[in-house]
Amino acid sequence: MSGFVSFVSSGPGDPDLLTLKAVARLQAADAVLFDDLSSGPILAHARPGADLVGVGKRAGRPSPKQDHVSRLLVDYAKTGARVVRLKSGDAGIFGRLEEEITALTAAGIGYEIIPGVTAASAAAAAAGLPLTRRLTSRRVQFITGADVTGELPEGLNFAALADPAATTVVYMGKRTFADLARNLIAHGMPPDTPALLAHAVSTPEQSLERHTIHSLATLLQGAQSQTPALILYGALAPEVESRA
Amino acid sequence: MSGFVSFVSSGPGDPDLLTLKAVARLQAADAVLFDDLSSGPILAHARPGADLVGVGKRAGRPSPKQDHVSRLLVDYAKTGARVVRLKSGDAGIFGRLEEEITALTAAGIGYEIIPGVTAASAAAAAAGLPLTRRLTSRRVQFITGADVTGELPEGLNFAALADPAATTVVYMGKRTFADLARNLIAHGMPPDTPALLAHAVSTPEQSLERHTIHSLATLLQGAQSQTPALILYGALAPEVESRA
Repeated sequence: MSGFVSFVSSGPGDPDLLTLKAVARLQAADAVLFDDLSSGPILAHARPGADLVGVGKRAGRPSPKQDHVSRLLVDYAKTGARVVRLKSGDAGIFGRLEEEITALTAAGIGYEIIPGVTAASAAAAAAGLPLTRRLTSRRVQFITGADVTGELPEGLNFAALADPAATTVVYMGKRTFADLARNLIAHGMPPDTPALLAHAVSTPEQSLERHTIHSLATLLQGAQSQTPALILYGALAPEVESRA
Repeated sequence: MSGFVSFVSSGPGDPDLLTLKAVARLQAADAVLFDDLSSGPILAHARPGADLVGVGKRAGRPSPKQDHVSRLLVDYAKTGARVVRLKSGDAGIFGRLEEEITALTAAGIGYEIIPGVTAASAAAAAAGLPLTRRLTSRRVQFITGADVTGELPEGLNFAALADPAATTVVYMGKRTFADLARNLIAHGMPPDTPALLAHAVSTPEQSLERHTIHSLATLLQGAQSQTPALILYGALAPEVESRA
């Protein structure tokens, strides 16, 4: 008897940004394995009696526990349980899905992925601006600012990231933004390119601050905090000036 | 007395991929203005008696009606109505939001944006693969393959788009993919780069086909159909081989 794993995207934080399908999977689950960012009211959708297992870890910190999470996932599924693996935002975007899928596939356990609202969409929505614009922002790109050691990932394509005609969203990028911005400016991006720092998007603690890539880099120089934050920069619509 | 407009993302097609917040806004709306792709069961959430107004247009066709849609939106809001402007996918990603926001702002009408599940997330989820991968796909980017005339947009950054270390998703890109692929290969992208053609994602008609950028370009040479389709290419995880 072998169970089944649903990777369920829990969205950017606001429990009302769960999808109906995510709620249905939570209600049907025998076990829910969740991260730091998708707890609280979101877990209230699970049925009484379901196992709720915190496997929290935040991006940007070393993650010795990834193997442990994968093993736990396989072990729960092998009991025949319907397992929900809850992932903040959209599970497919910086959700470290690959490691867990590989473990399930090796163990012969079936899975599905329920897509969700990624934090970039929520940050732009909160600022009242679109991520794409018909004539001025035809490309939108997402990167993470932190690899497993918390540093700026190696091998970033700075030419692609310094394109002022794109909108770029940096996930978990506060601590390394000064380093990133230095590289962007070295690749020709104007220092006064608009930037938006978005904290705790879609939650009651949400804040949005308007900057330029240069002023934001100065502000974040030496920043250590890894509170959940996104940085948007590039071809941002002027709405950001009136609402952020 | 002035109304209020909620731009509500209706997700990729599956009505169960609506968010709880989208459902709440539909239930509270006096009027719902909807596109082709967000009709059917999604509209069933609107209360009996709400005005349901189809303003359908598909990307890739000339859109003489954009001014008309904006005027309609302003006119409904000016009656004091709670207006929902339903947009398929995530409203902020290739949703032509800017024109409508500009019209509302000029008329002094307040608005909010409810983010949603973009089609790229749903396509990747359907194929069982993540859009980002820790070591091999650290950048994900979205473009549209069709400008308002249906042609490949001018001024695309082909160097950024030909990066084999990124995952790229092309919205509405079937008709122009042969042209795009020619440019990608000219910019050094290997012709055997994996590609995935995804039709009608998250609906009962969904299909997923695995290709290379070269074979897909050959297949789509001269394609005229603009049925809703996404093309993913680049650093796709090997799962695509076993499930697509």
